[in-house]
Amino acid sequence: MLELYYAPHTCALASHIALEEAGAAYETVRMSFQSEDQKKPGYLKINPKARVPSLVTDKGILTETPAILAFVAQTYPAAGLAAVGDPFEFARAQAFNSYLCSTVHVAHAHRMRGHRWVDEEAAIKAMQKKVPQTVGDAFALIEREMLAGPWVMGNTYTICDAYLFTLAQWLEADGVDVSKIPRVIEHRRRVAERPAVKKAIAEETNLVS
Amino acid sequence: MLELYYAPHTCALASHIALEEAGAAYETVRMSFQSEDQKKPGYLKINPKARVPSLVTDKGILTETPAILAFVAQTYPAAGLAAVGDPFEFARAQAFNSYLCSTVHVAHAHRMRGHRWVDEEAAIKAMQKKVPQTVGDAFALIEREMLAGPWVMGNTYTICDAYLFTLAQWLEADGVDVSKIPRVIEHRRRVAERPAVKKAIAEETNLVS
Repeated sequence: MLELYYAPHTCALASHIALEEAGAAYETVRMSFQSEDQKKPGYLKINPKARVPSLVTDKGILTETPAILAFVAQTYPAAGLAAVGDPFEFARAQAFNSYLCSTVHVAHAHRMRGHRWVDEEAAIKAMQKKVPQTVGDAFALIEREMLAGPWVMGNTYTICDAYLFTLAQWLEADGVDVSKIPRVIEHRRRVAERPAVKKAIAEETNLVS
Repeated sequence: MLELYYAPHTCALASHIALEEAGAAYETVRMSFQSEDQKKPGYLKINPKARVPSLVTDKGILTETPAILAFVAQTYPAAGLAAVGDPFEFARAQAFNSYLCSTVHVAHAHRMRGHRWVDEEAAIKAMQKKVPQTVGDAFALIEREMLAGPWVMGNTYTICDAYLFTLAQWLEADGVDVSKIPRVIEHRRRVAERPAVKKAIAEETNLVS
């Protein structure tokens, strides 16, 4: 049985959705960032990076969203969540997910997690000020160059859609003018309608754990 | 014929090494960041993100180091650069590479590319001041938790080694006290001795293009 450690309102939702879409047998363990569960000794043994998501498997523990998504797609190929038999198409999905983790998520993190990179309060505020622009520019590039349509990779819904949908949850809070990225917003609306997505979100937002 | 667009002293070296280790038929195209080649219209058609590396294949263009590394490993399985038939082990490698692109490279980028995330000069300086700590902390975690030894994944040299080696080139310039990460430094020394690595570096540092 797979075990997904997540916290609500984090990028772990992408892995949660992928497990649900794949029809995997899994359980979830909810962490509270408010209680700093991710820094407690028990969790640091699972993930010494003190982050979510972590996926406990019978072979060991996986971390990092792009890796967990690739694992789910390759382990449940019948779900068709990535072109697992085609190195080029598979790499194209990995490239999209790499952009999300290394550029989009990082741009967003400068709003709430500035202390990772600076100590001075004024510098943290300077970072926060630029977030609408940096996140907005990244999503504008996705809108223009990457979102093939109707799904990220084209005609097939993949792990990339779950990941894009997850990061697109934060657009309004990041101060991005969403009227400039109508295709991203329309994509977000369509992904939200999927039963697997509804189920994952319902579980994460149900306050009785 | 594959074509790798790179600039010297960038993370593109990891893809260059992987292509060489795989015995792939490829050519390289050197870009100059000093001349801002990456922002010129011709290159933006190849990679609208204005970054390196880009790998032009007969099926299309790939970007992002973890994706190109996965593509090379999957396309040349005989080279044994990743456990391509084992979803868990393959994902473990992807997790390591995701950590390098989203945390280690990003921490490093706050020294030279602070303008990505702030406009104020004082905030850029505040970022630069913390780089020895953030990059040092990330490499300390790699030293302690991730570098299985003798190679990153254990007994087999993989794409992860080429990528770690590449980012470890920047440690001294980032102000990291390398005496605290002896295993990373010993790994860097051993990777540097590999013929494929020597060949890639020689080509990148040969000033006659």
